[in-house]
Parts: sequence; structure tokens; C-alpha cells
Amino acid sequence: MSRARPGGAGVLYTVSVRTRGGDYPVRIGHGTLGSAGPEIARQTKATSAAVVTAAPVGRRYAATLLRSLRDAGVRARRIEVPDGDASKNLRQTAKLYEALLDLGADRGTAVVALGGGTVGDLAGFAAATYLRGVPLVQVPTTLLAMVDASIGGKVGVNLPRGKNLVGAFYQPRLVWADTAVLRSLPPRQRAAGLAEVVKAGAILDARLFERLERDAERALALEPEALLPIVERACAIKANVVERDEREAGPRMLLNFGHTLAHAVEALRRYRVLHGEAVAMGMVFAARRSEELGLAAAGTAERIERLCARLGLPVELPDLPRRAYLDALRVDKKRREARIRFVALRGIGKADTVPLTPAELLQGPALRGRRAGRSRHRSEDSR
Amino acid sequence: MSRARPGGAGVLYTVSVRTRGGDYPVRIGHGTLGSAGPEIARQTKATSAAVVTAAPVGRRYAATLLRSLRDAGVRARRIEVPDGDASKNLRQTAKLYEALLDLGADRGTAVVALGGGTVGDLAGFAAATYLRGVPLVQVPTTLLAMVDASIGGKVGVNLPRGKNLVGAFYQPRLVWADTAVLRSLPPRQRAAGLAEVVKAGAILDARLFERLERDAERALALEPEALLPIVERACAIKANVVERDEREAGPRMLLNFGHTLAHAVEALRRYRVLHGEAVAMGMVFAARRSEELGLAAAGTAERIERLCARLGLPVELPDLPRRAYLDALRVDKKRREARIRFVALRGIGKADTVPLTPAELLQGPALRGRRAGRSRHRSEDSR
Repeated sequence: MSRARPGGAGVLYTVSVRTRGGDYPVRIGHGTLGSAGPEIARQTKATSAAVVTAAPVGRRYAATLLRSLRDAGVRARRIEVPDGDASKNLRQTAKLYEALLDLGADRGTAVVALGGGTVGDLAGFAAATYLRGVPLVQVPTTLLAMVDASIGGKVGVNLPRGKNLVGAFYQPRLVWADTAVLRSLPPRQRAAGLAEVVKAGAILDARLFERLERDAERALALEPEALLPIVERACAIKANVVERDEREAGPRMLLNFGHTLAHAVEALRRYRVLHGEAVAMGMVFAARRSEELGLAAAGTAERIERLCARLGLPVELPDLPRRAYLDALRVDKKRREARIRFVALRGIGKADTVPLTPAELLQGPALRGRRAGRSRHRSEDSR
Repeated sequence: MSRARPGGAGVLYTVSVRTRGGDYPVRIGHGTLGSAGPEIARQTKATSAAVVTAAPVGRRYAATLLRSLRDAGVRARRIEVPDGDASKNLRQTAKLYEALLDLGADRGTAVVALGGGTVGDLAGFAAATYLRGVPLVQVPTTLLAMVDASIGGKVGVNLPRGKNLVGAFYQPRLVWADTAVLRSLPPRQRAAGLAEVVKAGAILDARLFERLERDAERALALEPEALLPIVERACAIKANVVERDEREAGPRMLLNFGHTLAHAVEALRRYRVLHGEAVAMGMVFAARRSEELGLAAAGTAERIERLCARLGLPVELPDLPRRAYLDALRVDKKRREARIRFVALRGIGKADTVPLTPAELLQGPALRGRRAGRSRHRSEDSR
């Protein structure tokens, strides 16, 4: 269950996440980074903290967070890790352990991940495993991390042979989301984050979807009155799904809406597309395919396409041969049989999984939509 | 809670372990390795299995286990890891991930750790983190692993700067304990394993302690009628402590009886003493100190000393300067303040923690017992 209520210290919303491993709050506000210290101290009972961050974010925000922690009586130090998904690996994890040992970190030391999903995954995995687990706090600095990666306890690193092949389910004690830090994100990154919010609305919450249709441009401009309720709703949806299904068996599957093709696009276009952009393309494809399968009413895909386009997101899959997509789908690590659990829409706010083989999924005109001259927007390829 | 009842397939006792992460059985028998397959399949629902083992044990027992798994319809393959605590590290973990990828291991693949505590820790940590966790089965091949390491979910590896600094709390789906495999253990190893059973009796179960006093030599000779009930009781005690306190805050602390000095001895004599031997010395010290502190009745230490000696375990600490012990105690990684939570006996079967500084712990004649000519048995130093 989750709920929204006004909070102190500039925190306007709190979403509570209840899991087997314990409950924790997601505190959402605007301009709250400098007041995170007391709440981190309260939730972790830590006497010291290691703020793990990557260079650009670290330079901008770490000082504010460290000061707030120290003012709250927490001995706080910073550990810098390299930026980017390529650094989310076992070697960096080992270095992070060494850095924690250098700080004398013990079970009373909180690991505070200040950054995007990559930093959260890496620092979270180190926190899950250092001394068999120390308290973890997520301070997401991207929209994507706020509404998705920081909630749910999925942490981990890549192996040379694949992404996120090593990790843990390890819940944070607190998620501290300050939307003011998003100011420093390039617009393209903001839009990519909002793609996951579009997804949450599309599969589970028609009202959130409508709110996005009303306030898309204002949310993109980070106006708190528009953005905070949207972030709160998206966090609440993620929290609710996580609560019902901590280990990713049932409803959590729905969060993969748009992701089957998104992962294929990312595999095929690794360094040219943001995750949220790939999800936007994947969602439009999945919605079209849902219409073709007779599951969603006509016009469903059109609404998703139009909203994504207003947010500046690409809506057409890269123009690659069907064969390339087929190959990319067949290496999906979570596939246990030949069939994929395709997440289909039954309308805006309603989703379901349908078992399909990769070949069945790629049948029909949805994949070819981009060739039918439907695209009125800049496609990913032209970026 | 735990219980004992007859079971099928040569399994005489079952101890149930209930944890937040789910329940699992410890099946105890004699000559049961070749019938483990169906139960592993049932408890893990795995369609494939990776049997992780180290060379000497692997050569002796892996074939029997693999055959039993295959007969039960489980595609089973063996992964060999290097033997010894020095190989329980991040590098070997990374190699184990690669080996699992080579086998095509997915979330339906069980990791079966066939070996002593080292293999259980390493394979257990890999199982806890590969794909964020795959089903784990412990098949302990040492007495120490049967009654202690395989139960409770503590898995992990060493860092260059210290032992077990990285790991997880990750429960197995099944522990399969076949005491017949202990035949291949050298007597010194068997005795070292029984040291942990002496410990369990000393802190929590006077009747187990008395049973050991009655059957020490027969247990050491692996006579099933003597050994199985002892193993069952020791497992039940460990399970009960783990259930009450999964994350090592309260009662689990009592399991550290004898371990404060044991860790010091191991640090000072790393390659010349077995863990169980160090524990025996540490227990005798701790019991003497408990008497000196007025907590245990006179004669308590004497009973522990006599039982350990009958099992062929060393009972006197190595003759090193008090200063050396003091230094060794002060690097204990779990120490959060200056004081150590020393586990003291209040009698056979009753224990308690007492906060003491290292200096206070080492005061009095207990440490000097070995110089007072009390030792009638071969000491560790003479081995």
C-alpha cells in the first residue's frame, strides 16, 4: 500500500513501500536535498555515512548532502565512482568495498547512493553485500531513477557477457527524491525519465495518463505543481507493484510494458539511445501490437504515440531488418522457454501478459509502422 | 521451531528451519547422498542444477550426486572450484558466474554446494547474487558445515583485508546432510566439527552436552546410532537460534561462544590450527573466565575441558604474550565500540553476553591457565 501526505522540510509527498524486508518511505519534494540529513539519520540509525556518487552529479550536489548529514551528527564522507553503465561491474564493486574499508565503514555506516540508476545499482549492490548488508539510502538524481530504479530493491552490476546478471533484491531504508536536482538534466534525459511515467499510467492508472496528457509540457519544464503529483503517482504505482510481488513473478511483469522491444533496440543501438527513448518506441510498438491482436481498442496506440511525441520522445523503432529484432529477442536472459511474456495493453490503464514467440510478436504491421509513413516526429535514427 | 521425525530414503531426521525468507528442511541421514536428487528437485523446482565442489570431495562424491539428480530428471553438471579458504574470494566468485553462464544457468537452475564451509560460502554467495538469486541447496561434507555453516543463510567471501567481509543472508531451499560422507574426513577434522557441537550444548542444551559426554568416542567413530541424534540436536539448536534472530542481533550472538579467542588464535596461527580446534581452546578459556567472573559454578570449565580432550581437541591457548592477544582482539571487524560482547557461560546449557573491553577479557588467570601446568593433553603448539 502507498499513500500521499504533506511532510516537513519541504517534503510534499510520502509514498510508503511495504516489503518483506521491511517498510520504507519515498519522500518527494522540490529543493529538499539540503534537509535530507536528519531523515537519513532517523531511518538508518547510522552514525556514519558514505555518499557514493559519480563525477558530474557529485560535483554539483554532494557538498549539500554531506553538509546536511554532518549537521545531523552523521560522520559523512564521499566516495566517487566512475560514471556510466560500463563502470557498473564487479571491478568497480571491489573498488567500492576497498573504499568502504578505507573509511572504516561498519554495520552502522549507511551507504547513500547519490546519482542516477547506475550509481544506485552499483552502490546498492555494494551496500547489499558489504559485511552482508549495511543500511542503504537512495537519493536519485534522474527522473528515471526517482520513479523506477530507486524503488523496489533491485540492485546489481553487469558481467562482461550481459547486463544486470549479478545482483540482489535489497531494499533501501529511505528514498529521498528532490525534483529540483533535475534542473541540471538535459531535456532529453528528462523526457526519457517521463517515458517510464507514461508507461506506469498506460498499464495501471488511466488518471495518471490523463494528467500527463494535460500537463506534459509543464512537467517537462519541472514546474513543481505539475511534476510533483506526477512523480508521486508514478512512485506509488511502482511501490504498489513491488509490494504485491517483491520477486518479480506476477504483476511486476507488467512493468516490462514496452521493454521487450526496448531491450532489443538498446542491444542493437547501444550507445545512441537512452533507455527511456527505447521504452517509448517499445511502448508504441506494443500498443499497436495490442490493437492488432484485438486486445486494445483502436486509438489506444495513437494516444501513447501522441503523448510521447509531445514529450520529445522517439516513437518509431529504428529501421532495421525484422531478422535483427528476432535475433535480439532470442537472447533475452529472462526467457525460460521459447515464448516471451509480452505485456499487452487492454486499454489505457489496463495491461496483461500474453505468451508469444518472438516470431509471433514481430508479425503484422506494428514493426513496419515506421515504414508506412506514420511517423510525424524525429525518429531515433536521426538524432 | 524445529522438530525431529523419521523420513524416507534413508533420512532419519528432519529439522525445519523457518525464516523470513521462507522455510526449508535439513534432512539428516547416513548413506543418503545417492537419494538426494528427488528431494532437491522437489524443494527447488529446478529443471537443471550446477553442483559446485572442490577437487578432493568432488572426485569422491560428485558422481553419486549427479547421478541421483539426473535420475530425478534434473539436468546436472559439475563446476569445480579451488579448495581452501584462500580461494573464497571475489575472483573465484567471478569465475563461478562465468561457469554458470557457460552452463546456460537461469533462474530455474539450482546451485548445489557439495563441500565444506568454504565451498558452501562461495557457492552460496554466487547463488545469492547470480541473476539476483537462484535456488541454493547445501550438501555439507564436513561435520562443521553440517551443524553450523550450512544452516542460517550466511554466505560470503573474503576480501584481501579480511575474512567474510562480503556476503549475504541467503537461505538455502534444502540442506542435505549425509553423515556417511564424513568417513573420508581425517579424525582431526571430525573432532574439529564436534567442537561446534560441544559449543551448542554448552550454551543452550545441557542434554546434548550430556549425550556428548556419554558418546564422545562413538560419535567420533561416526557410529550412526550415536552420531545422528547428536547432529540432529545440534542442527535443531542452530536452526532455532537462526529463526529467532535471522540477522544476528540477539541470541545469535551466543553462537560466538569461544569464538572471540578462537578468532584471535586463528589470526595469530593462521595455517596451523583448524577452526574447531581454535574454538575448543576459546571455549575452555571462556568457561574459565566465566568462573572467574563469578557467572558459572566451579567445575563448568573442567567439564568442557575434559570433553574436548576426549575428542582429541586442544584445550590450551598457544603460549603467546598477552599483548599479542590484545592486538588480535582489537581488530575484530564486528566491534562497534571499544567493548566486546563476550559470551559467558552461566553453567552448562546457559549462556549470556557480557560487555568487556579486550583488556578486561584478558585479565585474570584464565589466559595463563596453560602455564599453570593444568594441561594434561597435547596442546595445539605441539601439533
